[in-house]
Amino acid sequence: MKMIFAIVQDKDSSRLSAKFVDNNIQATKLSTTGGFLKSGNTTFIIGIADERVNEVLEIIKATSHKREQFMTPPVSLDNTVGGESTYPIEVQVGGATVFVLPVEQFHRF
Amino acid sequence: MKMIFAIVQDKDSSRLSAKFVDNNIQATKLSTTGGFLKSGNTTFIIGIADERVNEVLEIIKATSHKREQFMTPPVSLDNTVGGESTYPIEVQVGGATVFVLPVEQFHRF
Amino acid sequence: MKMIFAIVQDKDSSRLSAKFVDNNIQATKLSTTGGFLKSGNTTFIIGIADERVNEVLEIIKATSHKREQFMTPPVSLDNTVGGESTYPIEVQVGGATVFVLPVEQFHRF
Ligand code: NI
Ligand code: NI
Ligand code: NI
Repeated sequence: MKMIFAIVQDKDSSRLSAKFVDNNIQATKLSTTGGFLKSGNTTFIIGIADERVNEVLEIIKATSHKREQFMTPPVSLDNTVGGESTYPIEVQVGGATVFVLPVEQFHRF
Repeated sequence: MKMIFAIVQDKDSSRLSAKFVDNNIQATKLSTTGGFLKSGNTTFIIGIADERVNEVLEIIKATSHKREQFMTPPVSLDNTVGGESTYPIEVQVGGATVFVLPVEQFHRF
Repeated sequence: MKMIFAIVQDKDSSRLSAKFVDNNIQATKLSTTGGFLKSGNTTFIIGIADERVNEVLEIIKATSHKREQFMTPPVSLDNTVGGESTYPIEVQVGGATVFVLPVEQFHRF
């Protein structure tokens, strides 16, 4: 048994929750802020058998890894008339920080 | 020294807190959601000397284990007149998921 | 790599956050209650290379250790006229409980 701490961006958190449910992986969600990732983030605590650790890591990586996204910035109110000056810009989103911890005992009561 | 992570149902959380206080066990409470247990749940982080781990596990088990409860379902508004159709039903409540983790250093400042 | 859990009083939490940022230490903040410290407290989860563990412990100790403070109690409304009876009193503030945990794997995706 291992305990996995995964800190992901809030925006990836519900998709990741759904993936855990699909794959029968039990995860508990903590609300956390700042630090590893700039914006709001969520920490998952996952208890998993040793032989499924890689599977969990692959799911976290596939769902939450850092990637670029094109985003159209909101139109500024004091824009020049016509507004053709609003171009999509590339921003970095996502990212996950993951710790795998040894577990000495695991119980369900 | 060990660190115990105990995830219990919200409904058992204040009784468990009180037991920890009674037994001079220092626990910190995190608000958590979903996963190991269906409804709202609470995660306790407990720091405890090796020789008291079993004592803590017994308290968690006694206070928060899975059990059946009879519950009278709320009377439905579109019930047939007379309402004798409302019987208590058996539901499962409680349950705890517990991890005992090794600790390399413990400090109080 | 180690994982450090540091539980400090809310009142020391933003100063400690700032110190972590200054020293390029990545920390995630959890909102927690009760237990190790009487009033509201905050739990930091810190991932750090083995050789920087002592540095992190020194920062936590310097910023959050238990200390005495003189506090003027609020003037009671049913005080005797004149109010000279309000003296500063010494109260204990701060304090940190810190666990250093072994980490088997650490990933950033
Ligand atoms: Ni991708
Ligand atoms: Ni029972
Ligand atoms: Ni000092």
